[in-house]
Amino acid sequence: MSSFKTIEWKDGKVVMIDQRRLPGEEVYVECSSYEDVAKCIKEMVIRGAPAIGVAAAMGIALGAVDSAQNKEGFFESLKEVSEVISKTRPTAVNLFWAVKRMNGVIESNRDKSPTEISGLLVEEAKNICEEDIQICKDLGKNGSKLITTGMSVMTHCNAGGLATAGYGTALGVIRAAVKDGKGIKVIANETRPILQGARLTAWELERDGIPVTLITDSMAGYVMSKGMVDAVVVGADRIAANGDVANKIGTYSLSILAKSHRIPFYVAAPVSTIDFGCPTGDLIPIEQRDVKEVTHIGDKRIAADVDVFNPAFDITPAENVDAIITEIGVYEKPYEESLASMNQ
Amino acid sequence: MSSFKTIEWKDGKVVMIDQRRLPGEEVYVECSSYEDVAKCIKEMVIRGAPAIGVAAAMGIALGAVDSAQNKEGFFESLKEVSEVISKTRPTAVNLFWAVKRMNGVIESNRDKSPTEISGLLVEEAKNICEEDIQICKDLGKNGSKLITTGMSVMTHCNAGGLATAGYGTALGVIRAAVKDGKGIKVIANETRPILQGARLTAWELERDGIPVTLITDSMAGYVMSKGMVDAVVVGADRIAANGDVANKIGTYSLSILAKSHRIPFYVAAPVSTIDFGCPTGDLIPIEQRDVKEVTHIGDKRIAADVDVFNPAFDITPAENVDAIITEIGVYEKPYEESLASMNQ
Repeated sequence: MSSFKTIEWKDGKVVMIDQRRLPGEEVYVECSSYEDVAKCIKEMVIRGAPAIGVAAAMGIALGAVDSAQNKEGFFESLKEVSEVISKTRPTAVNLFWAVKRMNGVIESNRDKSPTEISGLLVEEAKNICEEDIQICKDLGKNGSKLITTGMSVMTHCNAGGLATAGYGTALGVIRAAVKDGKGIKVIANETRPILQGARLTAWELERDGIPVTLITDSMAGYVMSKGMVDAVVVGADRIAANGDVANKIGTYSLSILAKSHRIPFYVAAPVSTIDFGCPTGDLIPIEQRDVKEVTHIGDKRIAADVDVFNPAFDITPAENVDAIITEIGVYEKPYEESLASMNQ
Repeated sequence: MSSFKTIEWKDGKVVMIDQRRLPGEEVYVECSSYEDVAKCIKEMVIRGAPAIGVAAAMGIALGAVDSAQNKEGFFESLKEVSEVISKTRPTAVNLFWAVKRMNGVIESNRDKSPTEISGLLVEEAKNICEEDIQICKDLGKNGSKLITTGMSVMTHCNAGGLATAGYGTALGVIRAAVKDGKGIKVIANETRPILQGARLTAWELERDGIPVTLITDSMAGYVMSKGMVDAVVVGADRIAANGDVANKIGTYSLSILAKSHRIPFYVAAPVSTIDFGCPTGDLIPIEQRDVKEVTHIGDKRIAADVDVFNPAFDITPAENVDAIITEIGVYEKPYEESLASMNQ
């Protein structure tokens, strides 16, 4: 288990660790309304596709409890809550998956009272959170089989306990390999602009005593050329039905570098990250974020005042992905077929 | 011409713009001893291979003027000055080229008085500075032929007026293309850890009214995949006789990304950057710098407290380089032959 709580339902509120302030400060944010949760997702207090899914579910539960106090227009209020939550971030599909799952609970219980329905939604949100930890552990166990003793594993961004309800996807694979006694070490790319690698991945691995070396994103090719990387494992924000992977900006470059150095490139993600309704990666919306993320660190300007392009994600084509590791198994090319087999 | 002075000999002192403080402040540092100059090179007040060469020459001139006041041990003092200057940074060969050229002046004038010799060394240093600007302009003119109207050119780090006595190498090619009316635009990689792209390249292009868009290094592959890059032009810190190129960390990754997207990859550098005594790139020493460059921005810690790897340069194999642009012409593969032809 990770040694911190990414997100939890506590005394009728949603409490999450403020990931913008790590590693400097370990501060927890308390959300008492769905609007608070929406703001936290948007401003990346919480981030990482599975964690966003959990937050979305808990946000809807908060909105339902609040709406239940006013019996008039309960279902309209719930619709509004879902819409606000859905508009927070466009790329991670787990957000929409969680909203859909919560709406499923609403639909199957329309005959019940608002209080009963909101109670069921709170239970469902807590279930999604607990399931996510178990999913990560199962996924980790599956992925660990691809990792051999003494390997040096590169990862990008943070697909760790902080990106999920706990344990992590890419870092879940690493944690499971460490638990299996494989004595691996990690190279973490800092992951500009938000530095999730430097701030979050390095922080959580260090806390768990897993050896980690930090590099800038620009060093990835060089360390690969020096034989310092045996495998790349990353998370995903959305996987198209053909196996194309949307993940943190820089993942696509890494996949090309890995291919060019004949280093296996693995994607670790729960099944809820696969968007079977999306045939290929070029249909996945790519979020453009505030240019200040590139030009500033906190309030300090670190760049000249020029035009900036700040896409938050990129698409790695399926052909560059050697395996997709999920909680129900490891899938290989051709992904059109292997991923589709999940649904049968 | 660039609209600022990177380095100049002024009233018996060496004045350079403090590149650590750009773009926030335009501050000039005055060096009155060779030790001051050595410190400025080491701490990257001045950086960029050709500019380091000019600074080294001026540092030796300063040391000579000072040593000439004490006739005893003049030549021993000069030797000490050369050694201190030579130990500032290991990768850029222009440093050693400049030291060698200054030592040539000393050797051919050993019969003259210390005052006369130091006068000649000051003249030589000033010549190296002025020649460097002309070299950049000639190089730019040669490189502009490879650039066609409307191109979007990606560059890494700063190979601009700030990296030379003025005008620049990679940015010299861009300035010449703009002067030729080609209406090009530039994509500048921010270049972690020192952010020379964000701070210096963006700053000097913006000052010259050349359209520039800033991205993080991790976005390079993505913008290439979107058809936003027609050519990559970078500088060099040292070129081996076989055409392998040492340049700012991240250049090697870029060369692989460019190749994978069939985008031409050009290196722009004066002949003084070619190390004919170095047969291949793997013999070029790679400077490892303070990990604080990665973990801190100014005094602010931006990363967890873990191990850090901070190589300042990498080696791009000759096969990934489509042309080497110099002041005397454009050279293509096989570089063993084309570069050797310069010496004939």
